[in-house]
Formats: sequence, structure tokens, C-alpha cells
Amino acid sequence: MNYQPQPEHKFTFGLWTVGNRGRDPFGDAVRETLTPINAVKMLAEVGAYGVNFHDNDLVPIDATSAERDQIVKDFKQACDDNGIKVPMATVNLFYDPVFRDGAFTANDAKVRSYSIQKTMRAMDLGAEFGAEIFVLWGGREGSETDACRRPDEAIKRLREALNYLCEYNISQGYGYKFAMEAKPNEPRADIYMPTTGAYLGFIETLEHKEMVGVNPEVAHEHMPGLNMTHSVAQAWEAGKLFHIDLNDQVPGRYDQDLRFGSAAPKAAFWLVKFLEDVGYEGSRHFDAHAYRTEDYEGVKDFARGCIRTYLILKEKAQQWNDHPEIQGILSNIRETATNGALASFDGLLSQSFDRKALSSKGLQYEKLDQLTMDILFGVA
Amino acid sequence: MNYQPQPEHKFTFGLWTVGNRGRDPFGDAVRETLTPINAVKMLAEVGAYGVNFHDNDLVPIDATSAERDQIVKDFKQACDDNGIKVPMATVNLFYDPVFRDGAFTANDAKVRSYSIQKTMRAMDLGAEFGAEIFVLWGGREGSETDACRRPDEAIKRLREALNYLCEYNISQGYGYKFAMEAKPNEPRADIYMPTTGAYLGFIETLEHKEMVGVNPEVAHEHMPGLNMTHSVAQAWEAGKLFHIDLNDQVPGRYDQDLRFGSAAPKAAFWLVKFLEDVGYEGSRHFDAHAYRTEDYEGVKDFARGCIRTYLILKEKAQQWNDHPEIQGILSNIRETATNGALASFDGLLSQSFDRKALSSKGLQYEKLDQLTMDILFGVA
Amino acid sequence: MNYQPQPEHKFTFGLWTVGNRGRDPFGDAVRETLTPINAVKMLAEVGAYGVNFHDNDLVPIDATSAERDQIVKDFKQACDDNGIKVPMATVNLFYDPVFRDGAFTANDAKVRSYSIQKTMRAMDLGAEFGAEIFVLWGGREGSETDACRRPDEAIKRLREALNYLCEYNISQGYGYKFAMEAKPNEPRADIYMPTTGAYLGFIETLEHKEMVGVNPEVAHEHMPGLNMTHSVAQAWEAGKLFHIDLNDQVPGRYDQDLRFGSAAPKAAFWLVKFLEDVGYEGSRHFDAHAYRTEDYEGVKDFARGCIRTYLILKEKAQQWNDHPEIQGILSNIRETATNGALASFDGLLSQSFDRKALSSKGLQYEKLDQLTMDILFGVA
Amino acid sequence: MNYQPQPEHKFTFGLWTVGNRGRDPFGDAVRETLTPINAVKMLAEVGAYGVNFHDNDLVPIDATSAERDQIVKDFKQACDDNGIKVPMATVNLFYDPVFRDGAFTANDAKVRSYSIQKTMRAMDLGAEFGAEIFVLWGGREGSETDACRRPDEAIKRLREALNYLCEYNISQGYGYKFAMEAKPNEPRADIYMPTTGAYLGFIETLEHKEMVGVNPEVAHEHMPGLNMTHSVAQAWEAGKLFHIDLNDQVPGRYDQDLRFGSAAPKAAFWLVKFLEDVGYEGSRHFDAHAYRTEDYEGVKDFARGCIRTYLILKEKAQQWNDHPEIQGILSNIRETATNGALASFDGLLSQSFDRKALSSKGLQYEKLDQLTMDILFGVA
Repeated sequence: MNYQPQPEHKFTFGLWTVGNRGRDPFGDAVRETLTPINAVKMLAEVGAYGVNFHDNDLVPIDATSAERDQIVKDFKQACDDNGIKVPMATVNLFYDPVFRDGAFTANDAKVRSYSIQKTMRAMDLGAEFGAEIFVLWGGREGSETDACRRPDEAIKRLREALNYLCEYNISQGYGYKFAMEAKPNEPRADIYMPTTGAYLGFIETLEHKEMVGVNPEVAHEHMPGLNMTHSVAQAWEAGKLFHIDLNDQVPGRYDQDLRFGSAAPKAAFWLVKFLEDVGYEGSRHFDAHAYRTEDYEGVKDFARGCIRTYLILKEKAQQWNDHPEIQGILSNIRETATNGALASFDGLLSQSFDRKALSSKGLQYEKLDQLTMDILFGVA
Repeated sequence: MNYQPQPEHKFTFGLWTVGNRGRDPFGDAVRETLTPINAVKMLAEVGAYGVNFHDNDLVPIDATSAERDQIVKDFKQACDDNGIKVPMATVNLFYDPVFRDGAFTANDAKVRSYSIQKTMRAMDLGAEFGAEIFVLWGGREGSETDACRRPDEAIKRLREALNYLCEYNISQGYGYKFAMEAKPNEPRADIYMPTTGAYLGFIETLEHKEMVGVNPEVAHEHMPGLNMTHSVAQAWEAGKLFHIDLNDQVPGRYDQDLRFGSAAPKAAFWLVKFLEDVGYEGSRHFDAHAYRTEDYEGVKDFARGCIRTYLILKEKAQQWNDHPEIQGILSNIRETATNGALASFDGLLSQSFDRKALSSKGLQYEKLDQLTMDILFGVA
Repeated sequence: MNYQPQPEHKFTFGLWTVGNRGRDPFGDAVRETLTPINAVKMLAEVGAYGVNFHDNDLVPIDATSAERDQIVKDFKQACDDNGIKVPMATVNLFYDPVFRDGAFTANDAKVRSYSIQKTMRAMDLGAEFGAEIFVLWGGREGSETDACRRPDEAIKRLREALNYLCEYNISQGYGYKFAMEAKPNEPRADIYMPTTGAYLGFIETLEHKEMVGVNPEVAHEHMPGLNMTHSVAQAWEAGKLFHIDLNDQVPGRYDQDLRFGSAAPKAAFWLVKFLEDVGYEGSRHFDAHAYRTEDYEGVKDFARGCIRTYLILKEKAQQWNDHPEIQGILSNIRETATNGALASFDGLLSQSFDRKALSSKGLQYEKLDQLTMDILFGVA
Repeated sequence: MNYQPQPEHKFTFGLWTVGNRGRDPFGDAVRETLTPINAVKMLAEVGAYGVNFHDNDLVPIDATSAERDQIVKDFKQACDDNGIKVPMATVNLFYDPVFRDGAFTANDAKVRSYSIQKTMRAMDLGAEFGAEIFVLWGGREGSETDACRRPDEAIKRLREALNYLCEYNISQGYGYKFAMEAKPNEPRADIYMPTTGAYLGFIETLEHKEMVGVNPEVAHEHMPGLNMTHSVAQAWEAGKLFHIDLNDQVPGRYDQDLRFGSAAPKAAFWLVKFLEDVGYEGSRHFDAHAYRTEDYEGVKDFARGCIRTYLILKEKAQQWNDHPEIQGILSNIRETATNGALASFDGLLSQSFDRKALSSKGLQYEKLDQLTMDILFGVA
């Protein structure tokens, strides 16, 4: 197998991912700035389908209107020249000190208004590139001390902002789908809407809920020790999987954004298998970055590794589906369906069940799982 | 202050809490069995308002119909004699080996049918005692290996069960509200619906969603490191806080079910403050148990401690609300509201914001938080 | 490759592992009792080299002397008949309620004395079977509230017990090496000596420190999110890796004791590679158990899977060592050694270093890691 | 009570703590640079005893010799003018990109040499200020992939560096005690020597082990969910508690460095109680920083809060020691000592113990813990 990316795989990267300079809380940048145009060239070189960006990944926060227009023009040209699409856009509501108390949920109403305005402009920007998905990650929407505001007040403010932005989307005819990205903590002690599940609940309270779905991220679900595939499955089953962020992460620690599949390859396998099995057609977006030990050649190794691992796991997913012993066990598990048991309350209440018999047969899950490991290890 | 419980506080305990015998994965029971009737006496002695139970806390799983009726009669008498209410009932779908692969989501359709039947009977039982809330905790609904079933299939099965049970509730005129209790793991490696947020999303996909809410538990939200008060606030704001399980837990470890407020007293303070501020009127249910080092005198100390800590924190919440310096800072934070900023898209887009000015003023959250600590420490 | 276990691999299992009945905090046993003799037969069938046991895995805590002797005789015969060795013995100081407050560190001096006596008898028992390693896991040595005792007092008591047991070992000429097993929590809220590192420090304070080393367990190092291979490397480098417990575990949750390599296969790879690279010659002991969904055929699948995964990873470790591109990168990394830099203080202080130059070259760790993933996935 | 700091409390702060500008992985600095001299003024204003620093907190990494000398002179004057001591110094081996692969353990021998040289100069600098403790935190000593080096090689390199620095300490007559600071992860995926326990083991392998102890930090022990007081107790009992870093942290997440006692006040209580009970005489060093929402007035609130909470907890520790009911229970727990049980092996083996009797008495730990909560809440 060559594991060559094809357009239909829709592998995308954020400008901020290959452009990450390795700055962290304890150290300075280790790589020179990569211009957006050079990032696009690099992405073409590694075989990516598209690039995504926050407004300020492309246009500096203090750019004049003329500067902005020139940047947009040049970047469009670069995308065209390199055959790179822009399927998703987003807004940076976390880097500037103005967001230190949150953006849509900040106590200062001016900050809230500014955040909405900035998002509208980021929507304008993305629309110019044909982006169809607009991701919202509220990295600063949270608290270190719950003395600062009541958390239900934060939810109301978040709703107000989302309802407003949906209206703007309609008014401009942008046709965006919004994809909400959850994270439990970092950079705030507790971020509101800490899990994909929380957003699935919240979305149902919006005025235009059909326009809003989720963007689950591996690292953000792994941080609190959740099963990413379960989160994705709930979103998918509810028709809300609008986008996905692929990377990797060990539970219970700082946000690592590791190369896809490099920390928890088995979890990555189930995730890829799920996406392929259900026919997910959105972007496979890698929201990760290279180790600080790397130069830009290493960044390419990193980006190629993300793609390669996805394709390896996709192949293994097919192998799993085609594996006779695995499928035999699964058939056997499933053959116990009994139709009609729930036909009537009285009917169900009158049935008798032999608990002992129902408990006595081994379910062969250890065997199923070891066969899965064999496939993962390439020794099946 | 005397911190005496009153009926309006609605302090309740599960039969399984004071009746917990201290059995754990590495050790045997340390306390003799406490009969349900003796448990009720103990609860009256410590000042509880009510008692809750799983079907099999009261009626053994293999009891005959006659045995069941006698047990019910005797237990009702005990409740009446001791002035103890039964506000909530639930069903045990986890102890018997029949549930080793799940209950509503098990692969074996007979197990699924049996689980629904058992729940219907538990609903019948609770209704006899006037319970108005029916809690569902799907402790075995999960997996060790995702080879066993696709997680979206599990969700469909869970929905089928819930829809059916809602119909049964209607058909029998029980008037229950269902309260779904989430937990991320233990006893399964990954439990479906791992957080309160996940349930809030799931509930919206049900046929009778108005009948179903959540039962957040401190320990279950703390295990994955989430902020319990934020979870409760989301549920409350959505009109879904039907019940609550109070206990305590250190993040990132096995389910501890510690005495309320004894591990994370500050988190407990924000939680009590929220419940009191919004006027929550449901049960304050303690789902915790005494250390294994205790005899039944120690169990009483434990139960009294749960109540006492709640009342201490309730008093402190009032003190916080009445504290002039705290309220002064909060007023100051809130005075920055500007009306009308969102009146029109064009109006908002044409505004200019001075990011520097908006970022320069300190927000006094360290002071707010230290004042909160002073109240917590009783030195304000 | 056949991945057939050989005696030199020294694959061992505890009686308590294949004999685990699936009892957990929320559910009852799902498998019938497996007698020690049947466990030995099963271990022979799956290809194990040896069996290890706690005293009460073999001899009930209340057995008479005559019963004990008969059990020992029969079990020896079974081991001989099945070609199974007993390389390690240990003592159960956690199951009986007498240990609810700890064993060697309990506040009640009688409990401490009893615990030491019980350990001496377990040493006698192990010696009868030729065990050379004696593992001590202090599962109940800990606290829920630090009100119960000062933690330094617990350390002194632990030291007193260890010093005494070392003397007993000498006096009886048993020639045991003691291997101390750390765990951070569960079944106590905080266990004293929570990590292998803590024991490495503690051991140095003992009278016969040469007689005492460690028994790191994958699950117990993963629970707090530590890198098992780093812990093992520290123990090995200090000459203290006397035994090892192989299983698997996701960080930040209850003790899972999963099939080796089934949760974190990459971590398992580094661990196996380290053990094989350094020439570790002790037992490869699997301290894990089958899922509750299994019958005893599934338990065999589980046990065979532990062995198989170890051998697969051993083969991959060799492949890694033989991989030209990997070795090329590593040579390149290592060629920068400069001798003599530290020869004198003045010499070192007078050197000048070009930080920029030292920071500019990419280290190719992303490539190294992706090549490792390729080997792990079997696509290198 | 006024909770006024006194010199004997030895409250110290790092220059980097009050000088923290709020830069994090997702956002830029929110506060202007605070010069070292202004930091010292602020520390005097809030009542601190001393200030500690990394070499580059005071002297820029590229300062000339003349610049360095002027800075030292001015800073000494500022310390003298403000009555501020410098009890501890340390070295920054993590900020500059040269350390991206580690310092003492880096693969490039030139980086290792440079790191040692830089540390020697930092020791020179600290000695000029009379610092008696030299802290070493190896923030970059770790790995993202264990492909980069074998972890035992890292340990050998760390030992080589430490042995060398001890010799330098002797040669210069500085009289430093080295205090090693552990951390499990962040900014590396896995840091070598992840816990205080690991360092206690490592130190015993050094040539001048008497010269080397530990500097446990609350946040770093809480991150992996360990009990800080237990770690401190082990260090203290081994004579190795040379320094301590006080702050706060919720387990299982990024390094928070919160105001002392503000996240886990009960854990902080046990820690303060331990330090006061054993008569710890070293610095009480706060290694924390203010929220990003604060200006420098808020930084003062933060610093004053650290001190205030320590003093509140010190008072409560005394109250605990003086509390008749608590002391009564503790006496009762301890009265069960039986002398002579361990006098001889035969004597001990011949004793018989009544397990049932030893297990039947409640230990009153729930009561003890609730009384502790009452003291913590100020309602005892």
C-alpha cells in the first residue's frame, strides 16, 4: 500500500498547525514564522486537500482594510496555484488580552459586542474563500473562580451570541454550518461547554438549531478521559457531526495536540473505523502540531505522518470488516435478537427470563479485542 | 447556628448509602447487613427527610410476589412510623451477572427486554410509595472494547428503551419524571452517555423529552475533572435539573462517593450557592457512603456530616450574597453593560472598540476569590 | 511468526488473575470459582512458565494446619504434573476486614503484629515452593482522611515491618528478594508509597536495602499518568528491578488490569523493548484479568493474548533495532558528543556556545516516531 | 486575628511569580513587564520575607559581563532597601530554544555542557546574594517519543551533571543545598523524575547525596493526583525537605499555579499542619501567579492571599491540635499499642489474633474528618 492521500479523503490542516512555532508556557518559539503562503505550499507538498484558518492566522488583528484585501487576494492566488481548498474558517477569540475574561461570555458587554463583531468579520472573510463550515471554539469562555459570574448567565450570553450569528449567516446568505468545539479546561481553569455532549445539549436550545452542530476534537475529549469515538457517534447519530479535529492526547494532562494516532493508536483505529463505516463526508481536519524539536522538514514529517496513519487505519478498518473470524463472532453475538418482546406492556410483563442462562455464555470479547490488536499490529 | 435539617431542605439518602457494607474490589464487607427498616430508623435519627431505593435494595431479585408484598407493607409502615418520605425510586441494572454486557444496550435482545421489564416493575414499586422521580443510571451500559458493538447502535437501543418507558409511565398514570445519571467509567471502561452534558443532548432526541431530565452527581462529574456547578447550571438553565446526587470525589480516580464537601469544599460551596440562589426545590440527595473504617455509629457520623456541611455552606452562601465588598466588586464588573450594541448588523459592524482600553483594567477576581476563601474559612 | 511462549520468556500469572471471578464494586461474581489446581492446568494449557500466589489464593485464611499441608501437597503435585514453576509469592494484607485501616501501618498495634506474622507465614509458604521473589503490595496502607495518622508515622511503621521481615528472611535462609509494589490510590483514597519512585527512595532507608527492590505495575504507573518505561528504567538503572507486573490501563481512572498491551500498545512497545534491550531476566508476570463478559474459554483467550502481544512486541523491538533508517537517525543524533568539555571547571566556564546554532537543526523526532508507528502497525 | 506575616514565617516569592505576565499557549501577555526592582518593592509591600530567582529573571541571557554586574549591584541595593532576602536561587534551563531537547539530558553533548556551565554561573550569581538553597527543575528533561533516547541514559546524564555541580559547589565553598523539583509532564509529554519520590530514589545514587534534597511543589504532586502532604512527609522523614513550593492545582490538568489554598483548601490544611507540626524552618515559597484577569493591584491581592491563607491554616492547625474531642479520639486510637509483640520471631509466630474482634470496633474517622471540616469552615 502506498497510503497516498486523495482529494476524496479531504485531509485538511489549519494554518496554525503547520505554522505552529513551538511557543509554550515555559519556552519561546523554536521555529521562524511560516507565512500563510508558504504554509499553503507546504500543505500542497504533503498532499493536503485544504487549509483552514482563524481570521488572524491570515489577517493581522490590526490590519487596515487595504492590507486585508491585499492579503486575501494573495492568499487566494496561493490556494489556487497549489490546488488547496478552504473548507472551514474560524475566529480567534482567545489570543488578544481583550479576551482574558472570555469573549461571548465576558462580563464586559463591550467585549461581548466586539467578539460578535469580530466573528461576523471572520465569517465575511471565510465566505470569500468559499468556506462552508464555521468553527467556534470558545477557549476563553470559562472561569478560574466561579465568583466572577453565575454559570447559567454565561450560557445565556453564549446563546445570545449564537442566535445573533445565525441570523447574520442567514442575512448574508453565507450558508455556513456552525461547528461548536468543546474543551474542558486550558487556557481557563474550567471552560463552559466542556464536552461535545454539553454542546449537543446546548444546541437544542438555539433558535436555529439546524444550523449548528459540533466539531469534536480527539485531544479535547481525551483530556477528561472520554472515549472520542463514543462522543463522535453521539454527534453523528444526532445529525450533528459537522466537522472533526484529528490529533492525539494522553488523558489527564495539558493539551498536547500530538500527531494523529501517535499516542492512542487503538482509539484512533476505532475512530477512523467509525468515520469510514458511517460514510462521513466532511473534512478530516488535523488540528495538531509538530514537536518543538523539529525544523520545518520535521513539520512536514509530522503532517505526512498524520495523513499516513489515517490511511493505514482506514485500510485496517476494512480488514477488520472483512475478517471472517471477527465477523463470525459478531454474527453469533447478534443472533440472539427476539422480535416482538416489546409489542405490549402486558406481553412484556408476562414474560419470564432465565437470568442464569442469559449470564452463562461467554461473549468472546477478549478474543474479539485480541483479533483487533492483531490487525492493528499487522499480524492478523 | 445549629445547622438543624428541616423538611424544606429535603435531605434524602439512598438505602444503599447508609446500608453500604464497605465491600470493594480488594476487600470484603466490613459491616453487617443493615435492614431497610433499620436504615429508615437511622435516617430518621439523623434528621433525613426521605429515603430512595433501587428495587433490589428493598425487594430481593428472586423474591416471590407474596414476599414482595409483605416487604412493601412493612417498609411503608416503617417509613410512616419514622416520618420518612420516598421521593425517588430507581432500578438496579448492574449488580446481577445478567447485566455484564449492559442492560438496555446489551447485545442480547433478551437481556434488553428483561432490563425494560425489570424497570417497569421498579416503576410500579416506586409508585406504590409515591415516588415522583425515577432515576436511571446505566452503570453497565458501556464497553471495554469497541469491537463489541458500534456506539451509535447503543444510543439507538437506549432511546428505544427510554421511549418505551415513557409510554409505560403515561399508560400507568405514574407521573414520574425520569432523571438520567451520567458517569464516564467504572464499572465499564467507557460508559455511554459519560457526562450530564451528553444526556442533555440525548434527551432532546426522545419522543417525550419533556418527561426526561438529569440527575447530575458530584463524583461522576468530578471523575473526569469537570466543574459540577457548571454542569448543574446547564441542566438548570435548560429546565432539566430533576434530581441531584451530592457526595464528593477527587478527580481522575475510582468512584469515591465521599461525604459531601469533604474532598472539594470550595466546589461544594459553589454548588450549594447555585442551588440556593436559583431556588432549586428538589431533593438534596446524598449518594455517598461511610469509610470502611466505620461501624454503624460512624455511618451516622457520616450521614450527619453530609447534612451539616450542606447547611454550613448554605449559610456561607447567604453570607457571600450579603457581603458588601464582594457585592461592590460585582456591581462594578457589571456596570459596563451597553445596551443596543446588537440592535442592527450594520450598527454593530460600524462600531469601533478600543481593545487596549478594554484590556487594561484589572477585574479583581483574585480579590473576589480570596474573599470567598475568607468566608469559606469563617474569617470574613 | 508463531509467537509461541518458551520457558526462557518466563511468562507467569497470578492465581488471582485467571481465577478472577469478575466481582466489582457494582456487581457480583460472573464466573464460578476456579480451583488453584484447575488454574495451574489452564496456565499450562496456555503456555505459561509459572504461577504466583498470595497466601490466601491457595490456603484459606482460616485453614487448619492439616488442611494447609494437604493443600500444599496437592498443589505441588499439580505444579509438577503440569510443569509449572512458582517464582514468586506474596501475602494478602487487604481482603480481610482486619486490614480496613492498613496492615503494617494500621493504628492498632495488634493489627500491625498480625500483619507481620501473616507475612512470615506467607514467606514460609512461598519458600516451600521455591519462590525466590516475595512481592509486597500494601493496598490498604493509606488513608481517606489524614486526620487518622501523620504520614511520616506510617513510613516509620512500614520501615519497622520491612526491617523485621528482612531479618526473618535471613534467619530462615530463604534468600528472598522483596519486591515492593506501589499504587497511588484504590482501594484507599491515598496509598502511602504511591509510585515506584517513592519506593526507590524508601528502600534506601532500610537496614537491608540490598534485599529490597521494586515490582512496578503498568496499571499502577498509568493511573497517575506516569510513563511506565521511565519508572522501570529508573528501577533497572538502580539495580532494583526485581519483578514486574504487566497489564494495561487508561490514565486517570479506576484500576483496570486489562490484557497486556490492549489499552496503550505503544507504551507497551517501549516497555517490552526496554526489558529486552537491557536483558531483564526476571519473570514477565501478567497481573491482569479477563473482562466480566467472559467465561473460562474467554479467560484463556485473555491469557493467550497477554503472551501473544508480548511476543509480537518483542519481535517489533528487534525490528526497530535493525531498522536502517531509524538507526541512521539515531547515529546522527549521537554523533554530536564532545569529549573533555567537563574536564575542568575553568575549562568549561571558558567555553562559548552558539545557542542559535545549537537550536537550529531539526532533530527528526517526528520522523523517528512515525517510523516507530509504522513498525507498530506492521507496515514498515 | 490579623494574619500578619512575620520574618520567622519566611514567606518568599519568585521574581517570576509576581512578575508573571499571563502569557499562555493560547494568548499573549496581559500585563506589562515588572522590573525586578519593582517586584522587590511589591514584595516588601505585601509583607514577604524574601525573593528567589532564576538567573535570567534577573540577568538577561545575553547580558554582557558589565551589564550583569550593574544589574546585580542595583538589585542588591533594592533588596537591602526593602529588607528583602534571597534565600534561594535557581537556573532557567527551559526557556531558550537551545533546551528544546532537554538540558542535562539532551542528546547533543554541547547542549549538556552549556547547561552545566549556565548552572555554574547561576550558582555564582545566587551566591553573591547569599542564597543557601539552589533549586533545580528540569522542565525540559523528558521526551515526547521514547525513540529519542533510552530513559536510563537520561538518568546517567542527569547524575553526571549533578555530581559535577556538587563538586563545583564544594570547590567554590558555596555551601549550597540542592533541592530537586519534580514534575510529571508539561512542557514535555513525560518529564524524567516525575515525582518527588523518584528524586528521593535518584538522590541516593549520587556521590554527594547529603548535599541534595527535594523541593516538592503542590501543583506538581497534584497534577498526577498524588497527596502532597504524603510526598512532603516522605521527604521530611528522610531528612530531604530542603525547600517547598506552595501553590494550588486541580488534579489531571495543565499546570495551574493557583494562589495557595484556593483550589484544594483541605489538602493545603494538612500540608500547613504537617510543616508546622514538624517544625520545618525553610522558606515557605509561593510558586504561583495571578489570574490573567488581573492588573498589578490584582497581583498584590494574589500575593497577599497566598500569605493570608497560609496563616489562616496555621491557626487552624493549632486549633486542631488543641481540640479536645479530636485529641480524645486520637488518644483512643493510639491506646491499643502492645509492646513486645515483635520481640522474637517465635514469640510473634506463636501469638493468636482475633481478627473478628480487631475488625469490629468503629474507628471514628468520619467523625474526625467532619470535626476537621468544622475547623476548616470556622464553625468548630
